[in-house]
Amino acid sequence: MTSPEGAFIAALRSLATTPGARGLADDCALLDIGGETLVLTHDMMVEGVHWLPDQDAADVAWKLVATNLSDLAAKGAEPVGVLLGYSLGVDDAGFVRGLREVLHAFGVPLLGGDTVSSPAAQAHGLTAIGRATHRPVPSRSGARAGDSVWITGPVGGAMLGFEALRDGTGAIETLAFRRPSPRLAEGRALAPQVTAMMDVSDGLLLDSARMARASRVTLALESAAVPYAESLPESRRNAAMRWGDDYELLFTLPPGETPQCSAYRIGAVVEAGPAPVLLDGAQQHGPLGYEHG
Amino acid sequence: MTSPEGAFIAALRSLATTPGARGLADDCALLDIGGETLVLTHDMMVEGVHWLPDQDAADVAWKLVATNLSDLAAKGAEPVGVLLGYSLGVDDAGFVRGLREVLHAFGVPLLGGDTVSSPAAQAHGLTAIGRATHRPVPSRSGARAGDSVWITGPVGGAMLGFEALRDGTGAIETLAFRRPSPRLAEGRALAPQVTAMMDVSDGLLLDSARMARASRVTLALESAAVPYAESLPESRRNAAMRWGDDYELLFTLPPGETPQCSAYRIGAVVEAGPAPVLLDGAQQHGPLGYEHG
Repeated sequence: MTSPEGAFIAALRSLATTPGARGLADDCALLDIGGETLVLTHDMMVEGVHWLPDQDAADVAWKLVATNLSDLAAKGAEPVGVLLGYSLGVDDAGFVRGLREVLHAFGVPLLGGDTVSSPAAQAHGLTAIGRATHRPVPSRSGARAGDSVWITGPVGGAMLGFEALRDGTGAIETLAFRRPSPRLAEGRALAPQVTAMMDVSDGLLLDSARMARASRVTLALESAAVPYAESLPESRRNAAMRWGDDYELLFTLPPGETPQCSAYRIGAVVEAGPAPVLLDGAQQHGPLGYEHG
Repeated sequence: MTSPEGAFIAALRSLATTPGARGLADDCALLDIGGETLVLTHDMMVEGVHWLPDQDAADVAWKLVATNLSDLAAKGAEPVGVLLGYSLGVDDAGFVRGLREVLHAFGVPLLGGDTVSSPAAQAHGLTAIGRATHRPVPSRSGARAGDSVWITGPVGGAMLGFEALRDGTGAIETLAFRRPSPRLAEGRALAPQVTAMMDVSDGLLLDSARMARASRVTLALESAAVPYAESLPESRRNAAMRWGDDYELLFTLPPGETPQCSAYRIGAVVEAGPAPVLLDGAQQHGPLGYEHG
């Protein structure tokens, strides 16, 4: 079964013939210009789909920018600016406040964009532009059997934060969900080392499977080696690996190499088997993460 | 009275501190990178606001791309690629068809983007990236008293096309509205010559007023010199000057200079008076064009 989104993207792929589009299979597009390589990404967020209807507009702004910067981080790119497409809503001032905070936090200027009125749900788009600090620019497709698999930080924090926010419990810190922090410094440090890199936006297992498929290998992960958010109950570890929004970097290193930043070794790359990802040696069933469309 | 959009943009302006953002007052942002100047623009279109609900999805795709390329044309930029933010709808295949046609027509590759499902009205965003062919890159703000005012082609065609499409008369060719043609070659030819340039997207009078305000001058236009679409009745000439979507280039030249492409001289730049635009010597009343927000 192909989802509507899958069919649409397959049709778009035939229009993305330039090498820098990477067949629309990567998080970013590359553009060689002058002596530099630009790294470009565009994400959209829709009210009721990507954020809770009553969520703070400042947090929506933060997340829109942070998730795009996370894509740049996975390329080891230094952000140079963003363009915003904004639908006017009930709390435009709150949105500007969050935008100011996130742009200041990561030292990124607003370059331009467009503002529209929308008769129904709000939708915002953001284009982030970065400058590659290392070439070739890391991709998802370079993992090789024998490589080690790493992640820059814990999973599960965003899941717990989302649930606390949704249930209004106030019991657990919600920042991990509301204000994720793109791993820009880590991405730049790692870019010269990695054989493959991507950010974990849709779930560790799902994004691992995507990296494995793009690289034509299998990623063999060990659940005991995966770092989890501090307050995560042991019973929810498997769920945390299938939940996205943590925006840590997942990467592979050649045998014997150790990362130039703090990170956790969570598995090994092996020859492609029947499943793109193995957890503790076993094929996984059910949804591996958040599938769009 | 400030519109919600006006207040929002005023707040954003304080975040757009980099010179290349041009204070969000121009159609495009500029980014110096690797010895080149990139020209960046992002426009959004919303169902029911920017297109008729029953309009052909292929035409929507065409217009989304063409209007952004028109912004690049006004900078004399050569397009190098686009990023698409797309909400899935009822005719995604039609959208891809139009996208293929417009990208092919103007020789522009799709670089990447994002696809989302939307619970309500569709909203699409497009970021177009171009390479400046002449520096300094033309802006709206360089017109000087004594300059001549020009336009690359007729106004009113899009208005007639829109009305024919809306009324289903089939009487008048609707292409001018459905499939505007960005003046990319003209923009590149003119960029080294002009003192100011912009595309006419919201109406000749309104966009002339914007250029005049940005340049701190008055544009004195002559209605008899303005080129009109062939089938436009004489009685509708004033309306045609207040209707947008024709995407011709409006520009000013230093005294004595003639343009390097086909164009019509429609007036002169004079010292700033009480009104930013004069038509046949008289200040104009009522809406000068399509005001957003």
